[in-house]
Amino acid sequence: MENKIKISVVGGSGYTGMELLRLLSQHPYIHIHHITSRGDKGKLVSEVYPSMRGIITQRFIDPEEADLINSDLVFFATPNGIAMQHAQHLVSNGVKIIDLAADFRIKDTNIWEHWYGMKHICKELLGEAIYGLPEINREKIKNARIVANPGCYPTAIQLGLLPLIKNNLIDNHNIIADAKSGISGAGKRQDTSLLMSESAENFKAYALEGHRHLPEIEENLSMVLNEGDVKLTFVPHLLPMVRGIHATMYVDAIKDFDISDLYQDFYKNEPFVDILPQGECPETKSVRSSNICRISFQKQKESNRIVILSVIDNLMKGAAGQAIQNMNIIMGYDETAGLRLTPLMP
Amino acid sequence: MENKIKISVVGGSGYTGMELLRLLSQHPYIHIHHITSRGDKGKLVSEVYPSMRGIITQRFIDPEEADLINSDLVFFATPNGIAMQHAQHLVSNGVKIIDLAADFRIKDTNIWEHWYGMKHICKELLGEAIYGLPEINREKIKNARIVANPGCYPTAIQLGLLPLIKNNLIDNHNIIADAKSGISGAGKRQDTSLLMSESAENFKAYALEGHRHLPEIEENLSMVLNEGDVKLTFVPHLLPMVRGIHATMYVDAIKDFDISDLYQDFYKNEPFVDILPQGECPETKSVRSSNICRISFQKQKESNRIVILSVIDNLMKGAAGQAIQNMNIIMGYDETAGLRLTPLMP
Amino acid sequence: MENKIKISVVGGSGYTGMELLRLLSQHPYIHIHHITSRGDKGKLVSEVYPSMRGIITQRFIDPEEADLINSDLVFFATPNGIAMQHAQHLVSNGVKIIDLAADFRIKDTNIWEHWYGMKHICKELLGEAIYGLPEINREKIKNARIVANPGCYPTAIQLGLLPLIKNNLIDNHNIIADAKSGISGAGKRQDTSLLMSESAENFKAYALEGHRHLPEIEENLSMVLNEGDVKLTFVPHLLPMVRGIHATMYVDAIKDFDISDLYQDFYKNEPFVDILPQGECPETKSVRSSNICRISFQKQKESNRIVILSVIDNLMKGAAGQAIQNMNIIMGYDETAGLRLTPLMP
Amino acid sequence: MENKIKISVVGGSGYTGMELLRLLSQHPYIHIHHITSRGDKGKLVSEVYPSMRGIITQRFIDPEEADLINSDLVFFATPNGIAMQHAQHLVSNGVKIIDLAADFRIKDTNIWEHWYGMKHICKELLGEAIYGLPEINREKIKNARIVANPGCYPTAIQLGLLPLIKNNLIDNHNIIADAKSGISGAGKRQDTSLLMSESAENFKAYALEGHRHLPEIEENLSMVLNEGDVKLTFVPHLLPMVRGIHATMYVDAIKDFDISDLYQDFYKNEPFVDILPQGECPETKSVRSSNICRISFQKQKESNRIVILSVIDNLMKGAAGQAIQNMNIIMGYDETAGLRLTPLMP
Repeated sequence: MENKIKISVVGGSGYTGMELLRLLSQHPYIHIHHITSRGDKGKLVSEVYPSMRGIITQRFIDPEEADLINSDLVFFATPNGIAMQHAQHLVSNGVKIIDLAADFRIKDTNIWEHWYGMKHICKELLGEAIYGLPEINREKIKNARIVANPGCYPTAIQLGLLPLIKNNLIDNHNIIADAKSGISGAGKRQDTSLLMSESAENFKAYALEGHRHLPEIEENLSMVLNEGDVKLTFVPHLLPMVRGIHATMYVDAIKDFDISDLYQDFYKNEPFVDILPQGECPETKSVRSSNICRISFQKQKESNRIVILSVIDNLMKGAAGQAIQNMNIIMGYDETAGLRLTPLMP
Repeated sequence: MENKIKISVVGGSGYTGMELLRLLSQHPYIHIHHITSRGDKGKLVSEVYPSMRGIITQRFIDPEEADLINSDLVFFATPNGIAMQHAQHLVSNGVKIIDLAADFRIKDTNIWEHWYGMKHICKELLGEAIYGLPEINREKIKNARIVANPGCYPTAIQLGLLPLIKNNLIDNHNIIADAKSGISGAGKRQDTSLLMSESAENFKAYALEGHRHLPEIEENLSMVLNEGDVKLTFVPHLLPMVRGIHATMYVDAIKDFDISDLYQDFYKNEPFVDILPQGECPETKSVRSSNICRISFQKQKESNRIVILSVIDNLMKGAAGQAIQNMNIIMGYDETAGLRLTPLMP
Repeated sequence: MENKIKISVVGGSGYTGMELLRLLSQHPYIHIHHITSRGDKGKLVSEVYPSMRGIITQRFIDPEEADLINSDLVFFATPNGIAMQHAQHLVSNGVKIIDLAADFRIKDTNIWEHWYGMKHICKELLGEAIYGLPEINREKIKNARIVANPGCYPTAIQLGLLPLIKNNLIDNHNIIADAKSGISGAGKRQDTSLLMSESAENFKAYALEGHRHLPEIEENLSMVLNEGDVKLTFVPHLLPMVRGIHATMYVDAIKDFDISDLYQDFYKNEPFVDILPQGECPETKSVRSSNICRISFQKQKESNRIVILSVIDNLMKGAAGQAIQNMNIIMGYDETAGLRLTPLMP
Repeated sequence: MENKIKISVVGGSGYTGMELLRLLSQHPYIHIHHITSRGDKGKLVSEVYPSMRGIITQRFIDPEEADLINSDLVFFATPNGIAMQHAQHLVSNGVKIIDLAADFRIKDTNIWEHWYGMKHICKELLGEAIYGLPEINREKIKNARIVANPGCYPTAIQLGLLPLIKNNLIDNHNIIADAKSGISGAGKRQDTSLLMSESAENFKAYALEGHRHLPEIEENLSMVLNEGDVKLTFVPHLLPMVRGIHATMYVDAIKDFDISDLYQDFYKNEPFVDILPQGECPETKSVRSSNICRISFQKQKESNRIVILSVIDNLMKGAAGQAIQNMNIIMGYDETAGLRLTPLMP
């Protein structure tokens, strides 16, 4: 254990925290230092999650009592607004931070405060925080002190659109993202609508008037553009299943190009992005429990419209898996360490 | 039983046929005459569907031996291409036909033959067949000899778009329909992809290169227009659940109007269309086992884009329920007879 | 509406209350007077259950303000301990009561108070309350002022065992009931373990140390015996689905008899009990949304052991359906009024 | 790759074969040599299972053309009756065999031929084949040429009963095993009853007249006894979920003992058996995707009856995981190599 780095997880009892623990428990180079939980403090991790019996023997610690400062890196798998309270203290003591919530995802604090309904109390670090999508920011992540781990929908949608946006090939103001998420994306909340009696054998849209992931996507895709900005219509839906996001995107090409070549080339060195042949439909189950994003597309006949399909596991590439990928980059490990997991099928 | 009409069902052993039998078994004015099935001939209906024990005591009859000619009305719940073989013989003997397959849904036989991959052998009756969407063709259905019962996706999508198309309020060439269906829509086929091990906890698009319901929607919506035609991008997806269709539609308004007033007014006399307040999201479970279509919508901020949501039970308003509604219209019954079914929740 | 009786529902916002409303909304002889809900008072029923839009237009009323006294019959679909607070006042004013909770199910108040953890405050009416299993108490229910509607597990288990117990054919002290219930049986509670993320793709036993339905089953089956008492081992399990109970029972015969004849004969006049041929396995889906109980059995080879299988819809024959059946009996209606519902398949 | 052993999989396209490939793809010491499939020969593994894209790049080979003889070890993930055709040829050439089907699970060929409905054509090797339940046969497996990998139900049931049987603590002729399995246990067969439309939201027993796993359990548990034999009543049920087996067992103690001590002690050195405190209920999800078996129990009050609960992932400890465990034992690897997989939750 001597050469292993010390990792702490703040907010370890939610599904994202749990998925981090699943990955950390199988990671070759790390030692789990402290795991905090306000609601479950004092309990064994394995009491709350019996799947962890014999695997993680630690207890959840009260966040007030956790020894975060002696960690090499701290993951925040907390509600929005927590990481920004601790960031300054931790980074000034040399502790790296990966925030799986939204505190550092949006540079424009007016927009952030509007969508998240609270004051941002750590604006001084917002400038240096790196948006942790390795496919665009790998080099910057290496030296980051704070990584803002992307949201689940933004990951699936942006990976699906990046080759088109980066090369300025579509009408950037006329993008539609119709996205569907498994219910684990809603977290472990005691909410009637998340009960199995309500959500099984059911499908619906939500947040029709606007979802917080919209400004995150628009700001980050706009940064990718040389000039101008990106506008999209984003409608999320809730699937009657646990894990998986499927984003169906509709865009209009403004010039001719070979779409298969474009995507294959753009992602040719990416360990976690898989491009399917045109017309094949990626399924969420093909990436379940893995960090892989699979993408396909179809040009419409007699039209400049293109349909793009992108699937991820929302708790993996959409949250904990990507966070571990970012940790690997920061620490200089093989980017796939602890993440070479074959998807679970069936 | 004397005053009851005699109804036969051809192809009674699939899910659509089964749903017809469920509805017919609870309908006040009809007598089930013959039920045919090629694969299950000779078996009791209740052997194949134990849910029918004590409710339907008949056997499936070989279609060659069924006494269709002495029925008042025959439902075809068969694969495509069957109803057109029997139509001439039946209607010339005074038997009404409601075809739940696609044989009479499209007037343009070139298009039909292209998408369905077979010759149309009953073109002489195609002209008089009425497309059985009561919300647009109620008067014509009353006197129809042949009703082409609409497809499941086309029902959800058209009911969602009709008020806009009819009043020429949107760009008719730029419509996107992102639709999601429960797996019962794929029928009772021995297909590996329909196994629970494959389809549970999974979500995917399919038919990316084109789905047969596209020309049906485009032709019928175009007929609703005063001039011009309707073009849409249609992508169907498969949900990990049994019943329900959710269509999410994206359109661009070409003028200003009050969308709530428009929809409320358009459907104010419809017994099976329910308009929700703007911004509310209809869920498929709220219509399960009923003939109701629920619709909502949301105008996007700073944009002329409108999102429309439409949900039905694919086996009910999307198939058997609508067929019974058409039967009621043809027979002069209360249109809701046998269809005043409260949705099953939870 | 003049000839219709006035029915009120106390506790209408849970799943049992909701199912009562679904059945009452389709019942020919009743008028829904008041529906109460402490948590949802003031809200439209259809706000809480969008499936009721256009079907029930009433609001939930604060139980303190509801006009129960002017109802002909009141259903209590409340937590345990509520009906017994209102019973004396209502019955002395001529209002009939059907309690879907447990207040009047057990005659022995020591046992009741032990298992339910509260004082029984209406012991004076306990003696006259009739246990509402029509298959054994039909005649008594006709004149009852208070009906104790049986629990869901007790209904499935007792219907499976009655012919054997009544005829003293098995070892009454060596009965095992391994029962499995859909999650709607746990109610609409904000409990983490009922979240879809927890309960989908999962199966487990619960209440290993004892479940409240055990004394209910033992007391009522013992009453059926001429002498002696019944003892059973009862283990409930939670199924990853919404509706349905399956009870698998293991008993030891103490004499020879023809089991098919026994069951067919015992239930030959029962409208809601269906006996399958020996060896066939009833499935929960074959009774879903209906009031039917289906039963089968298998004698083991070279052994006196018999396996009995019994399935019901827990919200129907296990709760609201049986309550409506009891109401029909009390009111002198056809026992199947409003309950001739074909099960929903698929 | 030089030091890695060469493993072939016969019948790689079913769910058990697929699960073997998932585990082999993450195993540190092996090289996958040939993967055969009669139905999918010539196709890429990743065409049939898109989850394998980028992970396994091989094609399925026609079993007639596969180079089994140059493998170090061959897994048979085939239907019953295949392994016994190849066994003599392979073992006489020094190739080890692990058969995941039933060919070598039962020593009594009369019983085997009765239950499996075919002649056994490799009786000469039946004597030396080792029943691959490491918890009882670890030492014998080390030197085995043929391992008969146990069935899924037999694994869950036997691990639950072993401490009691081995120590002669219960009435061995009066054991009940009520078992429930996820649908992946039925394999990847084009069978109507396995369609999601049929099996979702459904639960039923099957094989009431007798299941092939019964003689396997009885024979192997009887071998564990010093004298006498074991008789049990075994009823399997089908769960509306994909992975997981839950066995609920009812036994009668014939003497006093501390059950917690018994189980803790019996399994104290087992890497894949986890004993929960008395009264806690293990859930299938807590072992999903892992090789762990979790067991609990409850002594009934005022009775000598004990309820035992045992859960496994049917494709893991119930099939492929146990097969890899057996391979590790044969090859002298750490028994947990490639199997230290944290269960997937949620």
